[in-house]
Amino acid sequence: GSSQLILERGHFLHGPYPATHFGPKACVLPNPTSVMHIQDPASQRLTWSKPPLNVLIIRKIRDETLLEPFKELCRFLVEEKHLMVYVEKKVVDDGSLMTDDSFSAIRNQLCTFREGYDDISDRIDLIICLGGDGTLLYASSLFQGSVPPVMAFHLGSLGFLTPFKFESFKTEVDKVFEGNAAIILRSRLRVKVVKGMFQRNEQLFSTQGNGIAPHNHINNEAGKITLQLQVLNEVVVDRGPSSYLSNVDLYLDGRLITSVLGDGVIVSTPTGSTAYAAAAGASMIHPNVPAIMVTPICPHSLSFRPIVVPAGVELMITLSPDARNTAWVSFDGRKRQEIQHGDSIKITTSCFPVPSICCHDLVYDWFDSLAQCLHWNIRKKQTRLTDASDSSETEN
Amino acid sequence: GSSQLILERGHFLHGPYPATHFGPKACVLPNPTSVMHIQDPASQRLTWSKPPLNVLIIRKIRDETLLEPFKELCRFLVEEKHLMVYVEKKVVDDGSLMTDDSFSAIRNQLCTFREGYDDISDRIDLIICLGGDGTLLYASSLFQGSVPPVMAFHLGSLGFLTPFKFESFKTEVDKVFEGNAAIILRSRLRVKVVKGMFQRNEQLFSTQGNGIAPHNHINNEAGKITLQLQVLNEVVVDRGPSSYLSNVDLYLDGRLITSVLGDGVIVSTPTGSTAYAAAAGASMIHPNVPAIMVTPICPHSLSFRPIVVPAGVELMITLSPDARNTAWVSFDGRKRQEIQHGDSIKITTSCFPVPSICCHDLVYDWFDSLAQCLHWNIRKKQTRLTDASDSSETEN
Amino acid sequence: GSSQLILERGHFLHGPYPATHFGPKACVLPNPTSVMHIQDPASQRLTWSKPPLNVLIIRKIRDETLLEPFKELCRFLVEEKHLMVYVEKKVVDDGSLMTDDSFSAIRNQLCTFREGYDDISDRIDLIICLGGDGTLLYASSLFQGSVPPVMAFHLGSLGFLTPFKFESFKTEVDKVFEGNAAIILRSRLRVKVVKGMFQRNEQLFSTQGNGIAPHNHINNEAGKITLQLQVLNEVVVDRGPSSYLSNVDLYLDGRLITSVLGDGVIVSTPTGSTAYAAAAGASMIHPNVPAIMVTPICPHSLSFRPIVVPAGVELMITLSPDARNTAWVSFDGRKRQEIQHGDSIKITTSCFPVPSICCHDLVYDWFDSLAQCLHWNIRKKQTRLTDASDSSETEN
Amino acid sequence: GSSQLILERGHFLHGPYPATHFGPKACVLPNPTSVMHIQDPASQRLTWSKPPLNVLIIRKIRDETLLEPFKELCRFLVEEKHLMVYVEKKVVDDGSLMTDDSFSAIRNQLCTFREGYDDISDRIDLIICLGGDGTLLYASSLFQGSVPPVMAFHLGSLGFLTPFKFESFKTEVDKVFEGNAAIILRSRLRVKVVKGMFQRNEQLFSTQGNGIAPHNHINNEAGKITLQLQVLNEVVVDRGPSSYLSNVDLYLDGRLITSVLGDGVIVSTPTGSTAYAAAAGASMIHPNVPAIMVTPICPHSLSFRPIVVPAGVELMITLSPDARNTAWVSFDGRKRQEIQHGDSIKITTSCFPVPSICCHDLVYDWFDSLAQCLHWNIRKKQTRLTDASDSSETEN
Repeated sequence: GSSQLILERGHFLHGPYPATHFGPKACVLPNPTSVMHIQDPASQRLTWSKPPLNVLIIRKIRDETLLEPFKELCRFLVEEKHLMVYVEKKVVDDGSLMTDDSFSAIRNQLCTFREGYDDISDRIDLIICLGGDGTLLYASSLFQGSVPPVMAFHLGSLGFLTPFKFESFKTEVDKVFEGNAAIILRSRLRVKVVKGMFQRNEQLFSTQGNGIAPHNHINNEAGKITLQLQVLNEVVVDRGPSSYLSNVDLYLDGRLITSVLGDGVIVSTPTGSTAYAAAAGASMIHPNVPAIMVTPICPHSLSFRPIVVPAGVELMITLSPDARNTAWVSFDGRKRQEIQHGDSIKITTSCFPVPSICCHDLVYDWFDSLAQCLHWNIRKKQTRLTDASDSSETEN
Repeated sequence: GSSQLILERGHFLHGPYPATHFGPKACVLPNPTSVMHIQDPASQRLTWSKPPLNVLIIRKIRDETLLEPFKELCRFLVEEKHLMVYVEKKVVDDGSLMTDDSFSAIRNQLCTFREGYDDISDRIDLIICLGGDGTLLYASSLFQGSVPPVMAFHLGSLGFLTPFKFESFKTEVDKVFEGNAAIILRSRLRVKVVKGMFQRNEQLFSTQGNGIAPHNHINNEAGKITLQLQVLNEVVVDRGPSSYLSNVDLYLDGRLITSVLGDGVIVSTPTGSTAYAAAAGASMIHPNVPAIMVTPICPHSLSFRPIVVPAGVELMITLSPDARNTAWVSFDGRKRQEIQHGDSIKITTSCFPVPSICCHDLVYDWFDSLAQCLHWNIRKKQTRLTDASDSSETEN
Repeated sequence: GSSQLILERGHFLHGPYPATHFGPKACVLPNPTSVMHIQDPASQRLTWSKPPLNVLIIRKIRDETLLEPFKELCRFLVEEKHLMVYVEKKVVDDGSLMTDDSFSAIRNQLCTFREGYDDISDRIDLIICLGGDGTLLYASSLFQGSVPPVMAFHLGSLGFLTPFKFESFKTEVDKVFEGNAAIILRSRLRVKVVKGMFQRNEQLFSTQGNGIAPHNHINNEAGKITLQLQVLNEVVVDRGPSSYLSNVDLYLDGRLITSVLGDGVIVSTPTGSTAYAAAAGASMIHPNVPAIMVTPICPHSLSFRPIVVPAGVELMITLSPDARNTAWVSFDGRKRQEIQHGDSIKITTSCFPVPSICCHDLVYDWFDSLAQCLHWNIRKKQTRLTDASDSSETEN
Repeated sequence: GSSQLILERGHFLHGPYPATHFGPKACVLPNPTSVMHIQDPASQRLTWSKPPLNVLIIRKIRDETLLEPFKELCRFLVEEKHLMVYVEKKVVDDGSLMTDDSFSAIRNQLCTFREGYDDISDRIDLIICLGGDGTLLYASSLFQGSVPPVMAFHLGSLGFLTPFKFESFKTEVDKVFEGNAAIILRSRLRVKVVKGMFQRNEQLFSTQGNGIAPHNHINNEAGKITLQLQVLNEVVVDRGPSSYLSNVDLYLDGRLITSVLGDGVIVSTPTGSTAYAAAAGASMIHPNVPAIMVTPICPHSLSFRPIVVPAGVELMITLSPDARNTAWVSFDGRKRQEIQHGDSIKITTSCFPVPSICCHDLVYDWFDSLAQCLHWNIRKKQTRLTDASDSSETEN
């Protein structure tokens, strides 16, 4: 396989260890407390300490084409693999499922739970998703801490997050159970909403002219965290139903970086860079790059290009002091809420990624979905953006 | 300082160490051979094993405004600091410098060298640049292996790579000599040009339809490396003087990813993402993100968005089998040469970064140069891209 | 002046009359019924059949900095020029104006009206705006048919639609009263919202594959026009408060052109191309180009480039048959309302432009506002997007 | 047909005639000398004063797939239609054509000419193109004044400029001969290269700060026109083989508008807006919009958005006084030449358009080619740029 190749060559997907001696006399001051031990992403493979027993199936509801695949999958896991299968209650209570007598035996063996009431987050060994990328976002939302490995099947066309074809699901599931599947750890963002108490220290900032403030102390220690959650794609701050522009300040590690005047701003993971951020004009980042992307939505400025910052920074978003209306925030498209003066949204990379099982490997899967989901650089074989070549050929 | 703050919080610029246990039973298969020990960039500080003795000064020639600062700097380093100062021969042979009697004593003490003849790469303890970002690119080109720390002064306006103001150069140099300066390790790309022998294995590819080829074996082992060098900004492949489009294939870790039909393609470091790649439409990447950026130049396809891939991959560029003319490659704007059928350009992250001394710290310096060099998101206080707000206010 | 120059050269701003004989034997079939007589925009100057008497002042309310200029202007028009001055009632009822005894004599001579109650649209000879571009949008909304000439002053910084400086307002107003001022006829869009009755004829469309439908008959004759109005900047269709994507169909002259999946779509005049459309990525069109611009907002497709179509086409927007939620429409940022299945929005160029008095002339004013309002192509004198030049210079 | 429809509605493609009375007393000062009489594009149909006799066939050479269609077409025109067929000499001298005995009778009846030696520009009644868009650019270059009607066939896939399918060529040609075909007058740009004598009047400009110069007199009357020609797509000014940036000044009607620092600048017709300009990021303009597009190529500035100006302006491009190297200019990809200090390139809309015969009509043909040539807004039916919808559906 390809990751094998990479290791044989002695390559790391992450990049080589940089030399830390510079010329005859200089070097990086060693700082053992800040050393990280990172296993290269290209070599990450799934293993099981014990055979998996509890499997959670997530399916898109209200999509009738998923009904048969869902039943087949349940039957296989329950009858052939003898596993405990967890399903959301509303999925099993679905009309056509309840009236199907041939499925009732299986149905009775399913464990059900209700979102928001029953916590199954420490009980699941494997998640299987059936449907579009939304199922994986939903899976991510159910597991706010450690996430079990996720195996995601598409039915119609390939998704960014659903690499497996359902046709051969039995063999694929068997292979995953054996262990050694390639996995990609998709980083998530940990987001905190802190209500009240934030104040921009205007004095310090105003001395800096147009530039950024080097020591912009922030008084928001006393705020109250009202929400903390993990997102797999992005945090979006926008103007909500208002017809006014949103006007928010963006801080990085406590420093005011810029103000965003426009429809809003997207803070996304590399996984999210091919979602809403791409629609807003961002470059697309492979999910193994440790980074956070900041993309303005229809900014009021011709020069507001999206930026990519290191994964470890803490971003903070607040209303600008001169904002004329509130802003709204949502998390992977959910839990939309209003942000007022004094509130702040703090965002950094979470230490709980989503371990997503690869169909081929982490490079192939990504480029395949770029081509198939986004038609990336697909063009007519003989197209004509520039005709110089054609005409010159005629001419000479 | 800010990096201090980051450490106190227990943050790493690099991002947190991801949890590697997923649910009750799954984890990443440990692979000790692929573990990297990375010191977090936010904590990287310069130290000296012995006091620096040999200093290389690089200045932009043919810029008269640099003459006095150059002389002042030489005088300071030679007379006050008692250092050995290296200067390129053509810099000292400059007319106005030779005829300046007051400088002749200093001038006689300078060590000179000629690029391409004299190798000083293992003798220099510190590089000081005077002028624009080009001086740093030039410094990078002189040191193909380990690069001594670089301290770069701008004279007119701030550069991306030249954060220090010359006004206070003595204090600044003194501080650097003391050690403990913040440094940013700017990754470079290691580029090899292999002449002849490359052949795309058409059979394998053609079975894959429009998609990418999963096992596209490449026969180019027998090629001859004709050039190997390090770039700090980017490798550019373009159509050169030809009026035909360039048409090149892009491989990632041995696999054909896409073909680029257009004016060309830029493979850049994060440092280079604010240079030519930005002009071609790329998002801008902080230099501490371990990544490689691929940006098409005026592509023939509306959907060819730039992409960001992990720093450890190996990219390869060749002429497409159906290319009607050759392509040209250049490296940080130099050594422009023709690429023909059978040639290949291999690019990956080098293990010899350029250790660039920060003026403030690695986050502040970058955002400051975004604002000052590129006017990033600078706008009129009351601008009007959307007037809804104004008019509504009148209305209500 | 510049327009003089243009005429002397025999140029028309509009473009030359194209030759209509092609080779020895072919020509355009003459069609007298379709000939238009267009006076070239470069020669358009304002004239008065009788001296203007009734002047409407529009000012941004709740902006205290406009209070003194407003009083000065009123005093000048009433006392020195002996004109009838119309002002909106809420402007005169403003607290600080009512309590200012020195202004009460003037105040008593002002004619007031209330928007939506009193129709003054056939009574006004000249409109004077004080404030931002929003005042002009508001003026446009008050005059749904013919619009009196508009003279717009900015107070702080230049606006796209407010070219005059207030400092010299007396001389400027006098010059306009004399006649012969350069004017630009800013085209508006006439928009109709038709409720109910629209049905896409699916059969015809589905036979066309991915392409557009050549004869896509539309049954919406029976619909009821619920709103008809003129916009100066743009019609925006978006998803409103919904977190679902909007999904609308775009028709041109009765033919389905494309579906827009994303945050929405902007149909704008050339005047509007520098407003919200620019934020969404459109090229910027001089207001004398007879065209309509269609710009998607964060489209779900990498290849959805904005397009510019001839001014005379009729565009129509409806919900796509497979849209999962409604859409919202607004007109120059006002009258936001929901669009449901069966509704359609019809848009074409209005025959009632806004005659906007130029400060210099129609070319100069536009480029001046591009530079000052949008910082168009403003950059550092010595910037560094590409460093090749610098470094080569060092090298050689 | 669709244009019929437009006329029935009383619409003009060009836009309605704007009201020229504004309020009770103001109107546009009538200026009979500047009135244009324009026949609406939607009603433009081809007619013949006499039956066409001389037909020029242009084919892409060195493309073997065109050989049979070319022979079929010649046979049809010569034997069935009894026309004089003109072909370039090198086309008839092509090897496989000369050795084909079955074609020799026809071959002997063809009239041949050599580009640059024989002028056939006043003899041709109809041009038929076989091949890509390049054939039409070539046809345009042969006719520097009035251009005969052009009928263009594609063989493989649809081109922007080649709307007809070859399969039914006989019927299509017959229909065109009957007259009444819809035609689109594709505007061309008339370009003059003036050598020497241009001088920017620095004093006047330097007093204007960053803005544009209101009265920037230009002394270039004494220059010598060295080249004058018509382009159908675009004039490109770029840095040619140089690795330095190009740095040119752009004037509009004699006024300095901006300086372009970057890879170059494209001045294009609406027809050209879907060619190289689209690759450089421009919005796409329907060919019936009377406009000129200016698009920077990889500009050194984040805020340099493309602009669209009225068709009648005169643009001029010169080297900037501080340009460090020359620039290169090319015309529809041909006649590439160097531009030095003192030279100027003057560009305006030509009065000799290319009358291009439509396959369907001028609106349908354009949108069809946007979809088929550029995959404009083509996307997967169920794609995922934003997943909010999917996941919400699962959630609720």
